[in-house]
Amino acid sequence: MAAAEPEVIRDKAAMRAWARRRRAEGKAVALVPTMGFLHDGHLSLVAAAAAAGGQPVAVVVSIYVNPSQFAPTEDLATYPSDLAGDIRKLAATGAVAAVFCPPDLYVRPGAGAASASCLEEAGGGYGHETWIRVEHLEKGMCGSSRPVFFRGVATVVAKLFNIVEPDVAVFGKKDYQQWRVICRMVRDLDFAIQIIGSEIVREADGLAMSSRNVHLSHLEREKALSISRSLVNARTAARNGNNHSQQIKDQIVQTLTEAGGQVDYVEIVEQESLVPLERIDRPAVICVAAWFGKVRLIDNVEIQAPT
Amino acid sequence: MAAAEPEVIRDKAAMRAWARRRRAEGKAVALVPTMGFLHDGHLSLVAAAAAAGGQPVAVVVSIYVNPSQFAPTEDLATYPSDLAGDIRKLAATGAVAAVFCPPDLYVRPGAGAASASCLEEAGGGYGHETWIRVEHLEKGMCGSSRPVFFRGVATVVAKLFNIVEPDVAVFGKKDYQQWRVICRMVRDLDFAIQIIGSEIVREADGLAMSSRNVHLSHLEREKALSISRSLVNARTAARNGNNHSQQIKDQIVQTLTEAGGQVDYVEIVEQESLVPLERIDRPAVICVAAWFGKVRLIDNVEIQAPT
Repeated sequence: MAAAEPEVIRDKAAMRAWARRRRAEGKAVALVPTMGFLHDGHLSLVAAAAAAGGQPVAVVVSIYVNPSQFAPTEDLATYPSDLAGDIRKLAATGAVAAVFCPPDLYVRPGAGAASASCLEEAGGGYGHETWIRVEHLEKGMCGSSRPVFFRGVATVVAKLFNIVEPDVAVFGKKDYQQWRVICRMVRDLDFAIQIIGSEIVREADGLAMSSRNVHLSHLEREKALSISRSLVNARTAARNGNNHSQQIKDQIVQTLTEAGGQVDYVEIVEQESLVPLERIDRPAVICVAAWFGKVRLIDNVEIQAPT
Repeated sequence: MAAAEPEVIRDKAAMRAWARRRRAEGKAVALVPTMGFLHDGHLSLVAAAAAAGGQPVAVVVSIYVNPSQFAPTEDLATYPSDLAGDIRKLAATGAVAAVFCPPDLYVRPGAGAASASCLEEAGGGYGHETWIRVEHLEKGMCGSSRPVFFRGVATVVAKLFNIVEPDVAVFGKKDYQQWRVICRMVRDLDFAIQIIGSEIVREADGLAMSSRNVHLSHLEREKALSISRSLVNARTAARNGNNHSQQIKDQIVQTLTEAGGQVDYVEIVEQESLVPLERIDRPAVICVAAWFGKVRLIDNVEIQAPT
């Protein structure tokens, strides 16, 4: 275990040098990328990172709200943050060796009026312009309503990988499509990094933990429980032999809508390729995104194929 | 200097392990990515790699004809190769520690009929689907006539970077746009790699060295000298105070056309951003691509702005 007080590093070069020293000491470096405002879901990722591999691990948690994964119409400006609180929570785990919280990760000589994300400049020149796309997995589900999201995620994660040079990185399966996008990117670009997908952590009442939950009113939060409830019911139905995706999706949509949610998507897809399934005849995942008030929430449940 | 006989490595994991051992020994690892059929231009890149940095260097030359940078209509099938000859030439330098010649670098469960490159499958699934684009620099010049070229180059170079994990990588400035694309990718994605751009090597008569020169007939080769001749004349004109890009470009087009070449493009652009310049009032580069027979050749000359 690392010392209780993590080192706080803001500079890219200092972060890389720190990580290289840990590796020279024989430690594996495990990265947990976050956008901060940490909750128990994030802390479960830290625990997974600390337990990774069969050797001593130096856990690095990055805290960076990545502008390039937000469209100009999205909630970058209101994304919650609490760096001091985050560092206290990470210190309390006793498992975090370093917190990487860079002020900015992009070269940006000026944002343009017609930008696709909260980062870009319009037109060519000298600003950031390199983007990684995982061209099939990024489509559909969250990629439909958030067209620059996975491009921004893949790109910033590659940057963090190149700065921290970790042996292991941990991602939450709450962001299921994101996790699959990162796994595919790592495979396709030959990053020497083991990706760990960590299970969803839920509140006692079933709501999947999310930094955005803080924006829910008490009433919206009650209504939002329809997400996890509908997913549990769907899994039960599948376990009981109903493998008709459309029927199961219709039931989820009905439950969410009756609760007052506005459905973005409900999809049942194959676990690795995220290709939609008409029948649940192989390992599947049911993915949901829905708005409750001004908050967009996502959740999912994995279904093993009936034997 | 390395031993005269380079180690030949075909496996990705073995390559990475080899490079990590060299770094553990205190050496810098310098990568020279090539597509083989090596000529003196490539050997000058090896020399630049061997001279890089202020510490002992282990030079790795990769030889891999990357299918994803060729469109299905292009010359992947006829791209020249001579692996045994290449290894002999590299051994003769006494400066190469390892040659990386992987059989394939992509996951590909099946090529589709409507593929954009010589790699892709159509539709989603399990094959390679992660692509890096340098969105402004990849446009124009070679990017206009070869739409998947820089996407394929950036992607395979990132893969090689992640496999070899070099401290230094050397690219020839003959492929000027490629060199700038790679520099930008390295900056934007935070690769911890120093990129060296190495000067063009020419035959005694001025023709820029290229693996594709072997496909030129004797007569075509004579005609192709119009490329370097027109570039030398253009540089002289610029040095003598002519800063009108259009006049200079028109002169080059005329020279190439009169020699029997078919011009793909002649552009005068700013050196770093590759933005076209109407006036040569800052560091510029004149880039040319032209067909002689069935061979497409490129060349360029850098022009410092008049003082």
